[in-house]
Amino acid sequence: MADFIEPRLLKGFRDFLPAAEIARRSLVERIEASFRLYGFVPIDTPALEYTEILLGKGGGETEKQVYRFRDNGERDVALRYDLTVPFARFVAQHRGELVLPFKRYHIAKVWRGENAQRGRYREFTQCDFDIVGSGGAAADFEILLVMRNTLRDIGAGELRIHLNHRGLFNRFLERLGVQDKSVEILRAVDKIAKIGAEETGRLLAGIAGEAAAAGILEFTARGRDEDFEKVLGRITELAGGENPDSGRLRLLRRFMADTGIAESFVLDPSITRGLDYYTGIVYETFLVEDPSIGSVCSGGRYDNLAGLYSRECIGGVGSSIGLDRLIASLENRGKLQPRTSYAELAVACAEEGEAGRCQALAALFRKRGIPCEVLIAPDGSPGDLTRQFIQAEKKGMRWAVILPGGLAEGGLGGNGLTLRDLRSRQNREGLTPEDVIRALTGA
Amino acid sequence: MADFIEPRLLKGFRDFLPAAEIARRSLVERIEASFRLYGFVPIDTPALEYTEILLGKGGGETEKQVYRFRDNGERDVALRYDLTVPFARFVAQHRGELVLPFKRYHIAKVWRGENAQRGRYREFTQCDFDIVGSGGAAADFEILLVMRNTLRDIGAGELRIHLNHRGLFNRFLERLGVQDKSVEILRAVDKIAKIGAEETGRLLAGIAGEAAAAGILEFTARGRDEDFEKVLGRITELAGGENPDSGRLRLLRRFMADTGIAESFVLDPSITRGLDYYTGIVYETFLVEDPSIGSVCSGGRYDNLAGLYSRECIGGVGSSIGLDRLIASLENRGKLQPRTSYAELAVACAEEGEAGRCQALAALFRKRGIPCEVLIAPDGSPGDLTRQFIQAEKKGMRWAVILPGGLAEGGLGGNGLTLRDLRSRQNREGLTPEDVIRALTGA
Repeated sequence: MADFIEPRLLKGFRDFLPAAEIARRSLVERIEASFRLYGFVPIDTPALEYTEILLGKGGGETEKQVYRFRDNGERDVALRYDLTVPFARFVAQHRGELVLPFKRYHIAKVWRGENAQRGRYREFTQCDFDIVGSGGAAADFEILLVMRNTLRDIGAGELRIHLNHRGLFNRFLERLGVQDKSVEILRAVDKIAKIGAEETGRLLAGIAGEAAAAGILEFTARGRDEDFEKVLGRITELAGGENPDSGRLRLLRRFMADTGIAESFVLDPSITRGLDYYTGIVYETFLVEDPSIGSVCSGGRYDNLAGLYSRECIGGVGSSIGLDRLIASLENRGKLQPRTSYAELAVACAEEGEAGRCQALAALFRKRGIPCEVLIAPDGSPGDLTRQFIQAEKKGMRWAVILPGGLAEGGLGGNGLTLRDLRSRQNREGLTPEDVIRALTGA
Repeated sequence: MADFIEPRLLKGFRDFLPAAEIARRSLVERIEASFRLYGFVPIDTPALEYTEILLGKGGGETEKQVYRFRDNGERDVALRYDLTVPFARFVAQHRGELVLPFKRYHIAKVWRGENAQRGRYREFTQCDFDIVGSGGAAADFEILLVMRNTLRDIGAGELRIHLNHRGLFNRFLERLGVQDKSVEILRAVDKIAKIGAEETGRLLAGIAGEAAAAGILEFTARGRDEDFEKVLGRITELAGGENPDSGRLRLLRRFMADTGIAESFVLDPSITRGLDYYTGIVYETFLVEDPSIGSVCSGGRYDNLAGLYSRECIGGVGSSIGLDRLIASLENRGKLQPRTSYAELAVACAEEGEAGRCQALAALFRKRGIPCEVLIAPDGSPGDLTRQFIQAEKKGMRWAVILPGGLAEGGLGGNGLTLRDLRSRQNREGLTPEDVIRALTGA
């Protein structure tokens, strides 16, 4: 065995076998179809960039996770670890070619060398969509609408988008006199769902003192049945009364009502998102039928996307769908039909010499948009019909068409076809190709 | 300016702006749709693998081009430089989970640090499809059929697949007594189209002597109008008479006739493909309307795919579509409509407060499958209708719907809509949403 290289993968990396890849693609295709309905357009950027571009001047925690190396030309390069930084570089570099507001989506792989324990992958697909070049409520709302409708359309079921406004929270911190600690406070509050209010309170007290901690917990708490307007009234008051940020939330609420989707949204002052760069609305999305899986779609509004690369200040609002989580949830709930083939129909071809005529028959079905696989005998196995039926079944197909022996002479136009239901093992004989199409499509 | 990082890309890497990305996706989607019609299924593998897996024990020319480095765990890793080697590893590793013959496609990025001059990219998309686990003519034929029909279906126009058989050529070399130099001879013959017969003859003479060189040139030459059968007869005779390889070509020819696609194939004894691992049929594809672009789809049959990783011998036959070339050719010939948006229809929304109702109107179109973008005013620009029309035109949209001011009160059901043709600048007034749908779909 020393002659062979053991076929193996790097830890944290995955192969996608057909069933997994079909599921992933089917989901991504539905998500893309939804984005396109709203006028979002795709872009792509390289997997590899200058490290300086991806890490900027700082680095910190991210730096440790990045796949960074010197290429053959001794350039300091790195694999992208998210799609946000490349998008910022993209907007700065192509500013003159883009029509603002620019609505883009980007679904692509990213790489992070983080601890691969606990179901974390070192290679995974991100699915981002953003509107840049508009600071208005219309853009905020469109991102929320696309999130909500896309997740509904792909079968995620009922969902709740938990919404908050960073600006409103900051106003409140200012009133408390602890705005200089806002970053640490935001990070502590971000942990509430995970570690509970009591523990968060201790963290906050350590950061901002007992009194401020109590105030912050009051602000972020939300009664179980407290509705959007009620929460909005309460936190607006705590933040010092009506202001542009509370006005923004009120306007978004009206847009939700105008489009009949208000029931999908919860105003949740405990949502802060850990990241520094959000300045406006922030949100996380939970599935009503599977809340324990955590947020499946999150994001927020940022003021200055490309500040690292350009003097021009371009703000935006965006969101990212957690594909891996979503696939896991849909599969667990039986909402993503496992498939191992796109074809449900096979043409049995036990005689190799018949391969041409079998393909000609299959062409009649394919022309009507019906995927159809012509079965091929594997090496070392005689090409008998029973083995072919087993092969088709193992591939996940439902139907097999059998050509009569004499068909080689008579062409494909006759009524000599047999259609076998591989599940019930029943045959229907004497069919024309049209009969087969009718049987499959129910037309 | 020292404060900014210059936004730039690594040499040989590309951004895809919406127009380029939409074109690429549109092509890939049509190719995938075709593969699926034949029962081919998708797989995916990691971008990053152990270097040992990707380079095996040798390396040579490939090694210099590979992006190879040590990861944070000091593992020797590399970015994949093709999809064939990962597929070989995949088949060896998942042999027990696959139903043979296994028909798969894989469309994904690969990386090669080669000289980025002359339009070569260091990151590009490969598009491979293979049938493994069958050595038969039916599998050979299916790959040829999928190549031919897929390229036709995506609008590549008339094409010629130049076919040859390595085995037949080797038999001929054996008769000449130069089979021990077959690898060098194959590589020399592979250059005929590029350097001409005379220069190739000199190369061959240096490898195998004057007499053998003349014989090889006679074998590989093809008269301008020499048809498949005639060439087959001639090279079969030169190879010593009927044999299993000439029989295979004869059978493939019959399958082509059975499916009515014979005119797309040329038997071309000068086709050898440079690579060592082909053992059976080999082929390259040229577009009749754009022959100078070179082969857009090539491949062949190989005996032992996963020999590096497994004792089991799994043969197959496959092909690879040259996406970049194909896109260039289709664009040059006006066969790939340039689009900068999926939406042709915009809803103008000059008043931000109307965003909810504009989205509710857009939802009526989207529900009918019509992509529709609600326009958003960019920062610093007042939201007047004329600017919105310009924005929509720049984005490549054809139509804009305008809501009457009073609609906010009256709902969306009335006949108060105006449809503007952004090309002719004509308005049609007094329309219901259904009227708009009829105007757009021509129904």
